[in-house]
Amino acid sequence: MTNDIIPVKKRGSFHVGGERTVIQGAPVEDLPYFGTFTFHSDPNGTHWTKQMYVQYTELAGPKAPYPLLMWHGGGLTGVTWETTPDGREGWDTLFLRMGFDVYVSDAVERGRASWAKFPDVNPTPPLFHSYESRWLNLKMGAVYPEPYQGQRFPVQYYDQLMMQGVPRWMTSDEWTQAAYDQYLERLEKALPGVILMAHSQGCTFALNAARKRPDFVKALVLVECVSLPDSKSDMAFLRDIPQLYVYGDFMEPDREPVHSWVAHVRDNAPTWRGRLDAMGADYTWMHLPELGIRGNSHMLMMDDNSADIAELIRQWLVQKGLGVQ
Amino acid sequence: MTNDIIPVKKRGSFHVGGERTVIQGAPVEDLPYFGTFTFHSDPNGTHWTKQMYVQYTELAGPKAPYPLLMWHGGGLTGVTWETTPDGREGWDTLFLRMGFDVYVSDAVERGRASWAKFPDVNPTPPLFHSYESRWLNLKMGAVYPEPYQGQRFPVQYYDQLMMQGVPRWMTSDEWTQAAYDQYLERLEKALPGVILMAHSQGCTFALNAARKRPDFVKALVLVECVSLPDSKSDMAFLRDIPQLYVYGDFMEPDREPVHSWVAHVRDNAPTWRGRLDAMGADYTWMHLPELGIRGNSHMLMMDDNSADIAELIRQWLVQKGLGVQ
Repeated sequence: MTNDIIPVKKRGSFHVGGERTVIQGAPVEDLPYFGTFTFHSDPNGTHWTKQMYVQYTELAGPKAPYPLLMWHGGGLTGVTWETTPDGREGWDTLFLRMGFDVYVSDAVERGRASWAKFPDVNPTPPLFHSYESRWLNLKMGAVYPEPYQGQRFPVQYYDQLMMQGVPRWMTSDEWTQAAYDQYLERLEKALPGVILMAHSQGCTFALNAARKRPDFVKALVLVECVSLPDSKSDMAFLRDIPQLYVYGDFMEPDREPVHSWVAHVRDNAPTWRGRLDAMGADYTWMHLPELGIRGNSHMLMMDDNSADIAELIRQWLVQKGLGVQ
Repeated sequence: MTNDIIPVKKRGSFHVGGERTVIQGAPVEDLPYFGTFTFHSDPNGTHWTKQMYVQYTELAGPKAPYPLLMWHGGGLTGVTWETTPDGREGWDTLFLRMGFDVYVSDAVERGRASWAKFPDVNPTPPLFHSYESRWLNLKMGAVYPEPYQGQRFPVQYYDQLMMQGVPRWMTSDEWTQAAYDQYLERLEKALPGVILMAHSQGCTFALNAARKRPDFVKALVLVECVSLPDSKSDMAFLRDIPQLYVYGDFMEPDREPVHSWVAHVRDNAPTWRGRLDAMGADYTWMHLPELGIRGNSHMLMMDDNSADIAELIRQWLVQKGLGVQ
């Protein structure tokens, strides 16, 4: 299923989205520099803001008809898909070895996308997630630093995961969506279609992007999707896009305490699936514990069975005619 | 000199450096979210800070005996070495095609390295470079938006370069140096040596890192190095490390106005070279205009002749026995 050598035809990157923004009236500051001198800083003038970053790898002779676009979750970057915290191969290169061209991105205001000055451009400061708050959010355990029993995330490498975290704004989701939309608009000029693989908050952006481009998005792989709008949202576009929903463990109804997103998904999944069923949508609900696979955290792609889950996803894509040329 | 296919054996990434940091006494905030609800944010607790990010690509059968580590300049990230703003191949993949394993990094508080909360961890806010200030700094021209005559940077794609810019702190250079040192310490356990290729501010960190590991650093390729300490700095380590200094155009003594770093280099280069000569160091001073190559900006690796300059560097490395196995 995988190859020893990845034959890369092309690798590159670009920024996309955003706009020129002029900052005016900001204080001109003299910033201290090692106590030796002060550096005169004048931020007023022209800046580019609200862009995102994309890094892509194209294979010589890909097996899959469309590239796989990997969209990360909140407070994280494209690093999510790279080497796992304990040093195993990430999904980016695993899927390359399986024959997919792979695009990994950093959403607006995270990682290599850079971020906009606040309060001049973005009106609010960002939120910093602590070890303690992430522990619950990422389904590591109910109380930091105690892991859930059977936890598959390599918790002894939790530091390495925390190093990947980036500050997260609550006031730039519209910019992020706009940049994702422009990203797909750009690819549409060169490619016949794409497969979106999104994680956590990234699933919200992927669903919105697919709604606008139902012909271009050939499949949705939604990993631990945190947002399942419950009633009136437009779902018609999902009739024609094969969808794979992947969820890990530790979401049982009687498990307490849980983070609010877990409760949201638990509460809304039945309605969501009911609507998909009613419209005859082609979707697979892969709740791993129902397959006998227990112990997966919110960070599935880093858990000790991450390669096995990647293989399940590959098999689903092959089944949909999207994994083999 | 280059190959159509890059045979990748392994690609991956890691974060290195930094430490656990506890934030206490920070205000707990309710951040507005699209006017619909407020998000309760409590940044107090444990965080990892002062780390850097490294992405590496190892070839199946590299030609070069040591990998090439690419260190970016101030207010930028590893994206510096990737696809040029006008869409040509970046030095990262050009050098991969030439047979070098390539490591590209984001220094502390930039890009995928993430950044620390201020003033809680880093005492100061960052500096935001504008289009106008960067224009001079990067030797695009004397007055924005007029390019120097003969400018080789594709100025019609200046937006794309500005999208790559990230905020820059003036108070974390010691953290950055420490992370770079730990990065080399980590590689030392697995590799016999490395070649450091640094740009602009990155050259300062590369020189300091080489001073501490003169046996491990097999060569220094310093591209538009902005810092040439003028007198009492320890240079003994440079006796045994081959050095290539590459400078572009627009630094003539009679050219005004110039950014302060250009004046610094112009003023200090004679002393620096004099000391290298006196100690019999193996160095090459490649001032491109002296080779008849005019028009290069501070962003050499993005200029219209970037592939030619990469080839000059490759030839120098081959000459030093570092380009061919």
